[in-house]
Amino acid sequence: MSQVTTTDLYEVTMALSYLREDMRAPATFSLFVRDLPPGRGFLVAAGLEPALDHLSRFLVGRSDVREFAEALRRPVEDLEPLHGLSFDGQVRAVPEGRLVFAGEPLLEVTAPLPQAQLVETYLLSLLCHQTAVASKAARCVLAAAGRPLVDFSLRRAHGPEAGMQAARLCALVGFAATSNVAAATRYGIPAAGTMGHAYVEAFASEEQAFRAFARTHPGPVTFLVDTYDTDRAVAKAARVFADLGLGPGCGIRLDSGDLGALAGRARTALDAAGLRDVQIIASGGLDEYGVAALIRQGAPIDVFAVGSKTGTAADAPYLDAAYKLVEYDGRPVMKLSPAKVTAPGPKQVFRGPGLRDVIGLANEEPPAGAEPLLRTVMRGGLRTEPPDTLAAARARFEADLAALPVEARRIDDPVAPLPTASMRLTVLTTVVRHRIERPH
Amino acid sequence: MSQVTTTDLYEVTMALSYLREDMRAPATFSLFVRDLPPGRGFLVAAGLEPALDHLSRFLVGRSDVREFAEALRRPVEDLEPLHGLSFDGQVRAVPEGRLVFAGEPLLEVTAPLPQAQLVETYLLSLLCHQTAVASKAARCVLAAAGRPLVDFSLRRAHGPEAGMQAARLCALVGFAATSNVAAATRYGIPAAGTMGHAYVEAFASEEQAFRAFARTHPGPVTFLVDTYDTDRAVAKAARVFADLGLGPGCGIRLDSGDLGALAGRARTALDAAGLRDVQIIASGGLDEYGVAALIRQGAPIDVFAVGSKTGTAADAPYLDAAYKLVEYDGRPVMKLSPAKVTAPGPKQVFRGPGLRDVIGLANEEPPAGAEPLLRTVMRGGLRTEPPDTLAAARARFEADLAALPVEARRIDDPVAPLPTASMRLTVLTTVVRHRIERPH
Repeated sequence: MSQVTTTDLYEVTMALSYLREDMRAPATFSLFVRDLPPGRGFLVAAGLEPALDHLSRFLVGRSDVREFAEALRRPVEDLEPLHGLSFDGQVRAVPEGRLVFAGEPLLEVTAPLPQAQLVETYLLSLLCHQTAVASKAARCVLAAAGRPLVDFSLRRAHGPEAGMQAARLCALVGFAATSNVAAATRYGIPAAGTMGHAYVEAFASEEQAFRAFARTHPGPVTFLVDTYDTDRAVAKAARVFADLGLGPGCGIRLDSGDLGALAGRARTALDAAGLRDVQIIASGGLDEYGVAALIRQGAPIDVFAVGSKTGTAADAPYLDAAYKLVEYDGRPVMKLSPAKVTAPGPKQVFRGPGLRDVIGLANEEPPAGAEPLLRTVMRGGLRTEPPDTLAAARARFEADLAALPVEARRIDDPVAPLPTASMRLTVLTTVVRHRIERPH
Repeated sequence: MSQVTTTDLYEVTMALSYLREDMRAPATFSLFVRDLPPGRGFLVAAGLEPALDHLSRFLVGRSDVREFAEALRRPVEDLEPLHGLSFDGQVRAVPEGRLVFAGEPLLEVTAPLPQAQLVETYLLSLLCHQTAVASKAARCVLAAAGRPLVDFSLRRAHGPEAGMQAARLCALVGFAATSNVAAATRYGIPAAGTMGHAYVEAFASEEQAFRAFARTHPGPVTFLVDTYDTDRAVAKAARVFADLGLGPGCGIRLDSGDLGALAGRARTALDAAGLRDVQIIASGGLDEYGVAALIRQGAPIDVFAVGSKTGTAADAPYLDAAYKLVEYDGRPVMKLSPAKVTAPGPKQVFRGPGLRDVIGLANEEPPAGAEPLLRTVMRGGLRTEPPDTLAAARARFEADLAALPVEARRIDDPVAPLPTASMRLTVLTTVVRHRIERPH
């Protein structure tokens, strides 16, 4: 499938019309999330790396033109003006890993209007989804309070490619490992995995299964203990560990039932067998709420695996994100649709201590002690910097998280910091609104 | 990315161990949804076509083996037994478009144990997500009560590939069109699209924008009317339609505000201008609940566009699906984990009139008048039938939907039919459970 035609048809109808009307002046579009969903005290900016990849490769080829023409049921010649169009604009963006809040641009594109328009849908499809999943995963990290997390989301993510992204985003916010082999390879993330229930069932007995697994995989192993009766399985696992002289690096995995109670009894049994080094891994429908509850009750769980709810950002699976024209040909513009008013002009976010943010105009001087969040990452269609690394994004995430106010870090009913608008942005908004509201 | 390594690492550890232990006897795995999420009276089976594509291409190559070894931090030689492994098993499955209920296998794989195990994660990642989205989209079709629906989900779906699938699944359940150009081309779906707010804002006035759009796109056009003041924009649109002698096939799109009230006033204004043929299209945060509410209040909306909530199946973005070993080497097996007990043995679903289903064993005779749902779609790793078509899947969906009881069709608090177990399956479950629960 062509990345160019993976777009809404209206981008094509608009771009073609701009070209026909000779409207090629620079336009600035701002991509931002209007409001944070309930249950979110912050968002983690994500998806920029693949977005820049997309923009640097963007080129409307002959087969794309034909697809456009077929979609519009028009002759190919009519779409010819789009042929050869590439992206040679400027992108200013918040680097991946930084925390962002309502109304703050994640990315601003400045390019000739037809180009800037045509890339809208694909940019939204990368940034909305990835920011939603990274933000959910980040809350799991907060809930785990320092204990390692493993990403198990591939099977529940919205298709294999969404699973790849989920693994990357979990690593970005500090997960220790992923179960996804291809993602481990592609992104250099440690891979983790144990055994499933089928493995245990395929053998005549649970203990035979454990012993066979240890034969195939010499060294530390993790046994799944909830296929039949968890307490009995823990006893069997302990016997096998002891017989084989295993301990450090080994684990048992609980995947159902009352994870807190089972972990408590398992810990007691393992300790009694002298297996203090054997870890307890919990999985099964966990997200930040489940992890926080287990931590709160003091469950002796060493590692949490989360999947379904994190990989799909289940309680907020999409963000109310928009890609809005804010300036065309030097003229600031805005939209007045009910509940969807946009502020005009290219913007910058100025971040003060404690993540007190001011949204201002791109050409404003930063307030004293404030740091501008958007950086110029692409100029003339080319990246201005080498590709970002996961490690760098993770470091940015950790630094911002450390500065996040406590009420935004809460798992239950978090309250997100609310950015304020600079005086210059407020004045411009009033002026543009007034200009538009004169009857015309 | 390799489809083979896009899998959970534990599939690899288990498959390798099966090979080392010489456990290559036939295994049957059953893929089913344990329980329907709240707000679902049925599921629409989906994802089989891409799943069969995957299985027919499955082959562990040398680079896959290396990735597996790296993920396991073991020498490549240790993973060599997996090299060249392909899928040459049998697949029985419910064709796409059919309605399914809790506990009913969507698909059963019978193959040598290592193969059947290794394909688990990828199959789940295709079938869970696609069934979830198709089921949500189907509810929109019910809510729209015969009025056409358009898929607008690409920008909110979990990445571009998930957007492609959403477009296909919406078409499968009867949507009239998609905004996604690449999906329109790939799947032969009509494409639809109008204009965005940016287009209106880029011009000096709304009316100039409408006139320019009509110049570029001779013939029927749709104008977006909520950029500034909707009522005024409708008047401008009416003037442009009248001036240009346009009418049939044209439309206006409402994307914010009180869609019902705005549509009512717009209809009155258009009719007064003699534009009875101009359609009203509504979009903006709609799903089956929003569509049903608008229909209930008699809003004169001709076409509904749904996106964010449908493409992400927002209220149930994942299904509680499992791929469980049910038989190995002729021995039926089951799992006793709390709340996750599985029934043993290869199965069949026998569908009686009114979608009264009996889940039985695969080798049972169908009850009188009942139709078996699972068909053999792959044998020896090869498809037994030519690829399915969207039209055929849609016809199956429509036939099942027509037979669905009224309480399952409801938008609010639907109640799904509950399949019963056949006597033979019940007896087998009791026998196997008893065998497992003897201490061993």
